[in-house]
Amino acid sequence: MSKLAIAIHGGARQDSEFIRNNLNGYKEALREATEISFTLLKRGKPALDAVEAAINYLEDCVLYNAGRGSAINSVGTVEMDASIMDGKDLRCGSVAMLRFVKNPVTLARHILEDSHHILLGGEGAIEYAKHKGVVMEHESYFVVPHQYDLFMKRRDQLSKKEKEELKNHGTVGAIALDSKGNLAAATSTGGTSFNKQGRIGDAAMIGVGCFASNKSCGVCATGDGELNIRSIAAGYVSMLMEEKGMSVQEACDYVIHVKNKNAKGDMGLIAIDPSGNIGMSHNSVLMHRAWMTSDQDFTQKVYEK
Amino acid sequence: MSKLAIAIHGGARQDSEFIRNNLNGYKEALREATEISFTLLKRGKPALDAVEAAINYLEDCVLYNAGRGSAINSVGTVEMDASIMDGKDLRCGSVAMLRFVKNPVTLARHILEDSHHILLGGEGAIEYAKHKGVVMEHESYFVVPHQYDLFMKRRDQLSKKEKEELKNHGTVGAIALDSKGNLAAATSTGGTSFNKQGRIGDAAMIGVGCFASNKSCGVCATGDGELNIRSIAAGYVSMLMEEKGMSVQEACDYVIHVKNKNAKGDMGLIAIDPSGNIGMSHNSVLMHRAWMTSDQDFTQKVYEK
Repeated sequence: MSKLAIAIHGGARQDSEFIRNNLNGYKEALREATEISFTLLKRGKPALDAVEAAINYLEDCVLYNAGRGSAINSVGTVEMDASIMDGKDLRCGSVAMLRFVKNPVTLARHILEDSHHILLGGEGAIEYAKHKGVVMEHESYFVVPHQYDLFMKRRDQLSKKEKEELKNHGTVGAIALDSKGNLAAATSTGGTSFNKQGRIGDAAMIGVGCFASNKSCGVCATGDGELNIRSIAAGYVSMLMEEKGMSVQEACDYVIHVKNKNAKGDMGLIAIDPSGNIGMSHNSVLMHRAWMTSDQDFTQKVYEK
Repeated sequence: MSKLAIAIHGGARQDSEFIRNNLNGYKEALREATEISFTLLKRGKPALDAVEAAINYLEDCVLYNAGRGSAINSVGTVEMDASIMDGKDLRCGSVAMLRFVKNPVTLARHILEDSHHILLGGEGAIEYAKHKGVVMEHESYFVVPHQYDLFMKRRDQLSKKEKEELKNHGTVGAIALDSKGNLAAATSTGGTSFNKQGRIGDAAMIGVGCFASNKSCGVCATGDGELNIRSIAAGYVSMLMEEKGMSVQEACDYVIHVKNKNAKGDMGLIAIDPSGNIGMSHNSVLMHRAWMTSDQDFTQKVYEK
């Protein structure tokens, strides 16, 4: 039986006054998500189930920028991106500009399981969600007080330029290694506060925000989504491991601190290799994260380097 | 002064009865697009202008699956994807699920030039297009007789499963190297016939359908978009050149014939390195393409290996 491992991040952001004021709840949710995932792995469930369950838990928690609690865009609505990938056979699914779907990563999982497409966006994704019968909610479900207050304050007080320069990103990501030695990765996000309607970020893009292959690793990127896109962040980690034989930690460090050392913007990466080794690297002040393996009890770093 | 080079592809597809019946026009358009681009390069214009002009020409030509002449999706509408990237500074822009915009790659160029986002989709992209004042057309402009006839025939004659298995892909892509030694790449597509509403393909994804970096190459992928996504096709070529020192031809061949040799689906890649060497590789029966450099007159391969 393979070593079991789960690693989860809650984003690489600095400006989270609300989180600092609700730190116990934030940490508790990260612990719950990790333990739920790990329990599934211990019961022999596939890594795909474990990452979906972890992300679902954080999508349902108002403290995380995904699902309920998502950032509000410049026209006052919530549009969500998510993706999921199976390292065993490279099947994958993702959604972009998604509204009304309670758990975006679960819709991405439906695409992975039985669509010949990978990425569905906007109205087409909503139609697909209705067809699949996934849980839908009214828009008001997604808009929580702290995001609404932030939106109103910024709308009324910031200039257009200041709004565009906001770096209030936040993503959740999870990677798991199951008892059969299969890797999976998943991400979900509400995007960035005041982003343009229709902005699609790295979390919807397989190979950028999320990637998994049993030949290399499962990996999630967080931070400045646009920087992650032009750096092909998650895919680069996988390529360095598969083509150059780097370890998972070396590959994460290389992408952030060597390849993109002069890039402006926050980057964060967490990854697990097929042996259950965990790599984590970031250039941001913070990257909230937690992990647990067959060898190591639950550990989390929230407001720690 | 750097060597000048332009390379263009018109997609990697087999089932193009309409093209076979209009072969002279198809070839003439490929020649025109190449020569227009090369003329711009000779006048000292940036590679970015050259690739945009080439793609605009093919977007306007009904024989290519991009802009006017795009494939019709399963709900009977045209939704287009496009992307463009500057190898000098990695600025990039892309659009997905775009309607009404005459030249999708030109809207992507606007995003590249002055948005803090990279990828805009659906209604948000259309709002941005209005704001930028790009040329818009009624839906009927995009729907041309041969695509309409194909849509109606398939709608009435094929089973649901047969429709989903259609591989009638088609993309256009262009890469250029300018007199200052800068690379750029651009792609545009109408997607696949009978794809689901909201399907976003590789052509909208920087690092997958299109990538450019002066450190490695400019590169466009074509073929089965979903295969290109899970293979991180364009980004892989760039990474192999930058991190493993492969030549542009070696990298294209490796991605298609080594890394993805067991993958099911069509893949095609064309790329140019900073010295003006051109790499081209495909596993599909055909990949229509043309190129021209300071050293080599216009050359095209249409219905040739």
